[in-house]
Amino acid sequence: MSLKPRKILQVLQGQTICPPPIWLMRQAGRYLPEYRETRARAGGFLDLCYNPDFAVEVTLQPIRRYRFDAAILFSDILVIPDALHRNVRFTEGLGPQMDPISADEIALLKGDNVLDHLNPVIETVRRLRDELPEETALLGFCGAPWTVATYMIAGKGTTDQAPARLFAYQYPNQFGFLLDLLADISADYLVAQIDAGADAVQIFDSWAGILGEQEFDAFAVKPVARMIASVKARRPGAKIIAFAKGAGLLLKDYRQKTGADAIGLDWTVPLNFAAELQKDGPVQGNLDPVRVVAGGNSLDDGIDRILQALGNGPLIFNLGHGITPQANPDHVTALVNRVRGFTA
Amino acid sequence: MSLKPRKILQVLQGQTICPPPIWLMRQAGRYLPEYRETRARAGGFLDLCYNPDFAVEVTLQPIRRYRFDAAILFSDILVIPDALHRNVRFTEGLGPQMDPISADEIALLKGDNVLDHLNPVIETVRRLRDELPEETALLGFCGAPWTVATYMIAGKGTTDQAPARLFAYQYPNQFGFLLDLLADISADYLVAQIDAGADAVQIFDSWAGILGEQEFDAFAVKPVARMIASVKARRPGAKIIAFAKGAGLLLKDYRQKTGADAIGLDWTVPLNFAAELQKDGPVQGNLDPVRVVAGGNSLDDGIDRILQALGNGPLIFNLGHGITPQANPDHVTALVNRVRGFTA
Repeated sequence: MSLKPRKILQVLQGQTICPPPIWLMRQAGRYLPEYRETRARAGGFLDLCYNPDFAVEVTLQPIRRYRFDAAILFSDILVIPDALHRNVRFTEGLGPQMDPISADEIALLKGDNVLDHLNPVIETVRRLRDELPEETALLGFCGAPWTVATYMIAGKGTTDQAPARLFAYQYPNQFGFLLDLLADISADYLVAQIDAGADAVQIFDSWAGILGEQEFDAFAVKPVARMIASVKARRPGAKIIAFAKGAGLLLKDYRQKTGADAIGLDWTVPLNFAAELQKDGPVQGNLDPVRVVAGGNSLDDGIDRILQALGNGPLIFNLGHGITPQANPDHVTALVNRVRGFTA
Repeated sequence: MSLKPRKILQVLQGQTICPPPIWLMRQAGRYLPEYRETRARAGGFLDLCYNPDFAVEVTLQPIRRYRFDAAILFSDILVIPDALHRNVRFTEGLGPQMDPISADEIALLKGDNVLDHLNPVIETVRRLRDELPEETALLGFCGAPWTVATYMIAGKGTTDQAPARLFAYQYPNQFGFLLDLLADISADYLVAQIDAGADAVQIFDSWAGILGEQEFDAFAVKPVARMIASVKARRPGAKIIAFAKGAGLLLKDYRQKTGADAIGLDWTVPLNFAAELQKDGPVQGNLDPVRVVAGGNSLDDGIDRILQALGNGPLIFNLGHGITPQANPDHVTALVNRVRGFTA
């Protein structure tokens, strides 16, 4: 229904748009003073996620400042374990924590009321679509089953999520059950986001990079393929970006195996490999977020190399990981202007 | 002079040895009760590194238990910043810490007395060569300049060593100076280890995997190439293993660009890619250390797949990262037996 085209959707359909559309992972975040102000009023981090007034406000903040081509729903991948009653807490300085799940407890998990619990998030999506400028795409998202499972098992983030790797070796049946459950719940959650007005959704597999190839297929590829198949069976036009951070060489057939429309690339993906991947469809990425802290020549050089390598194909410009609290908001302005000044 | 061949040296010369020789990164470590006992007597971790009596003892412990084909000097990559007076501390549960270095302080670093400071480590190497069985190779090691620099800049380990990446963007000249200094000091240190009796040396670039391709070339490849060229210019027969953890696709020409004789592979390296790399020379790796915690089928499967993929070429069997404190010593026995039972 939009008269002004949403450029990110055009790219997700395979078109090359020049200059490429841009948004930044974690663009509604601590680097923005207005975010910090709202966050202080909201209370805890999950209070912010579950309060549509606050969540809509922080989602819109970076759009007002930078006119990004997409807004991304303000939420967190760990609302799913929270909805599964895993007692998720966000404590300043400690990162996310929850009750570690045991093999025995997995069989008792019930996904029945997850969407009721997440209703405030869906309400946020609905309101956002009403409030966003017509040309701004709205992205929903969720975590990939593997990444969410790593937190559920360790009860927190660790250096290399070894607790989940060990659990997967020791309890393959229970672990497979958990991944399937998370895939099915997450697919329902994405469908609800799409029905509420999300133009496209992204699946974050932040811990994909610590898996051996066999485990990558079993724990990262298959559950994401299951999710995507489930979403697309119900919403055939849905557009899905899959971001398997750190997957490197294993990205080669990730798009084909998962059924994702676009694949996100982290900053370690070499640009000539990225260009190969782009021959099969849209890619998104992949500026080192630290360059946005540094600014100046290192920022400009990083941008230019991506545009030169990938700007003549279907590209959504983004960082290779979330923007950091240390990023300078003026550097983001410089980034957006430089990308928008690109001519093929 | 050895009558009994040191199999790892044969592999480093390009030979295929069946079954392949085996050692484990961090094989002298906390998973062994006898190590924990010695460690408790030694005091702090650095006291253990700098006391040849203790360091020799813990280096020999896994050789007595498992008859690994190589002993690796017990030490730490952070003895270099310690020798540079960065106040290195190892505090239980906190990981290594040191005084973070500023851009201004880098120019003041002096490498003059580093080898004096490290003399106890060299003494350990000398004694080890005398005490080891004739057929057991002795490996020396050091950290790669990039990895050591990341700790010197952050003052500790972080999730993705972003402080060093930022520093490198902001202070390229000082950062380049630091890498060169570390490369030159480390080359001297490796030469001293070789002269004291190390049969080969390994360079650990544990944080290579968080670099973009341009930075990988500048910060990981070039300093390691500089080190290797320096060592080989002085000790032409020296054999060097380079281990760039997490480098993925960028391993493709790592051997050729650095001049390493063998390349270490972490557990995320796909085995068919590993087999490609093996066509150019020996490889080392790459069992997921978590499998040694899990034991059973997951251990056996992991071993068998590596042997099948790489056992018919020059291979040093190893883990894809250091063995963890949670590893079961009996699983290590099973691992060694299974590798030694391999027939091509």
